[in-house]
Amino acid sequence: MSTSQISPRVTLLAGGVGGARLAHGFARALPDGGGPVDDGPHALTVVVNVGDDTERHGLSVSPDLDTVMYTLAEVNDEERGWGLQDESYATLEQLARLGEDTWFTLGDKDLATHVVRTARLREGVPLSAVTEQLAAALGVRARLVPVTDYRVRTLVDTPSGRVAFQEYFVRRHHADAVLGLHFDGVEEARPAPGVLDAVTDADLLVVAPSNPFLSVEPVLAVPGVREAVRASGARRVAVSPIVGGQAIKGPAAQILETLGHEVSALGVARLYAGLVDVMCIDERDDHLAGPVRDLGFEVLVTDTVMGGPDGRERLARELLTAVGQPGA
Amino acid sequence: MSTSQISPRVTLLAGGVGGARLAHGFARALPDGGGPVDDGPHALTVVVNVGDDTERHGLSVSPDLDTVMYTLAEVNDEERGWGLQDESYATLEQLARLGEDTWFTLGDKDLATHVVRTARLREGVPLSAVTEQLAAALGVRARLVPVTDYRVRTLVDTPSGRVAFQEYFVRRHHADAVLGLHFDGVEEARPAPGVLDAVTDADLLVVAPSNPFLSVEPVLAVPGVREAVRASGARRVAVSPIVGGQAIKGPAAQILETLGHEVSALGVARLYAGLVDVMCIDERDDHLAGPVRDLGFEVLVTDTVMGGPDGRERLARELLTAVGQPGA
Repeated sequence: MSTSQISPRVTLLAGGVGGARLAHGFARALPDGGGPVDDGPHALTVVVNVGDDTERHGLSVSPDLDTVMYTLAEVNDEERGWGLQDESYATLEQLARLGEDTWFTLGDKDLATHVVRTARLREGVPLSAVTEQLAAALGVRARLVPVTDYRVRTLVDTPSGRVAFQEYFVRRHHADAVLGLHFDGVEEARPAPGVLDAVTDADLLVVAPSNPFLSVEPVLAVPGVREAVRASGARRVAVSPIVGGQAIKGPAAQILETLGHEVSALGVARLYAGLVDVMCIDERDDHLAGPVRDLGFEVLVTDTVMGGPDGRERLARELLTAVGQPGA
Repeated sequence: MSTSQISPRVTLLAGGVGGARLAHGFARALPDGGGPVDDGPHALTVVVNVGDDTERHGLSVSPDLDTVMYTLAEVNDEERGWGLQDESYATLEQLARLGEDTWFTLGDKDLATHVVRTARLREGVPLSAVTEQLAAALGVRARLVPVTDYRVRTLVDTPSGRVAFQEYFVRRHHADAVLGLHFDGVEEARPAPGVLDAVTDADLLVVAPSNPFLSVEPVLAVPGVREAVRASGARRVAVSPIVGGQAIKGPAAQILETLGHEVSALGVARLYAGLVDVMCIDERDDHLAGPVRDLGFEVLVTDTVMGGPDGRERLARELLTAVGQPGA
């Protein structure tokens, strides 16, 4: 028996930065960066939210897919959390000169991704196949797949009305109170090829420490996905994105609050009740382990704040060790 | 009577570099850069070939329109003859990394033009309206108009078969013998709004020193344009792109030769017989003035090699003075 045959098969449901970091951790912890094992399935499949997708200047932009892809390819801008290293902005500056509204920042290198994606989509290639091509070109070994090839768009209800996700998130700096969320098109969407299998056949199924409402819910809301998670024989774990009552990044805390949830790992756990077996919470939230356990979860308490590549790999290895086997 | 009221109305039929340079000369010689006179028509209208247009990476590229636009806006790369000053190539390099074929060079700033054009065209805006918007954003005062809003594509018959224009021109460095030319779609094309009026109502109608086969013919071949030139009451002049038996730039000389024409200003004059009143030939071709006159042309002999902005303006002023009035 080769060592690779004992590699567990991991499927990660992910949004942007939090999902990208944990995906990177698993890619480092698993053989061959999460690539195919013995010509079989990939050791790591990352199923990514597309509700954040948008069109800018006629180009199709998939922010969460790209954040995960760039992070897995280790070409992402770590400090900023999105986009590519060593970016320049010559095209964007010229777009502004030509009268375009450039509040959504697109770097010159990043633009190449959107140009290729847009060209392929217009040729009729599905988003999942485009993503596979782009990820392969960047050297990503893990499988990266949009949850759906259909068009799903997150719309955000704010006190000043319903706005497109990037309008809320980037243009208005997620400053509006989120009164509700709508995933336009999700009822008609179908999971992309391989998504349900990746959920069903995984040994370890992980809900990334991504925003439960903005990143995870539009993945689960694609018809068939939530049901597959519920029915999966995998060991299932969710990592809380709330640590010490705050979000590591982004508006998760505000959204929990305005939607009437407790802003804590316990509040997050309540959202995932019945969906996963294990809640992974931060050691700063050790006092919540009891109440989370009372909801019916197993609880893993560890340092969930990943920081750089080493921290990501450490968390991935802990999840593999502590959660990866039944009854661990 | 204001001075602007005596400005003649000039219409230039143009391809790429030669057309762009003479357009720039007229823009400098005419009031307000060739802009509208007393809220009336523009002093300068440049009608541009679209047979060179192409799609690269899913983006709509109009090389001749852009060369004229950038030159009129004085943001063009003078040394290279195409594209913008101070360009960078970060997107193109990334496109190559993503597996795209990048033999057609696109700078980062230049890409903004193609991104905006593509977005507007896909929204259903005609090329002429997109061009007007782009030119205005860059501060162009003259009217810049594609000869047609329809899709016309120059195809080049070479010893190795029929190839798309940019395949011949850029990818193969116009090294193939040109056995014939085909303007795909031209029979169904219609002149863009204002083109026929600009030809008909001009005081001075100028055929730029552009390639007669690759640049001028696909303009004239749009149904109605050649007829309008023939019927125009304007003073009509063609400037020879062949000087001393050679082309200033590009493959005009080779094409004249392989298509069986004399490689000289006289050979060019024969192509324009019956179309224009005056042939403008270079002083180095003074000995051809007699034979050109024998074809029925008036002849203007001058320095037609424009070089920089001053030379362009000088040639434009000479054409305005010597040709701009009937019987001049």
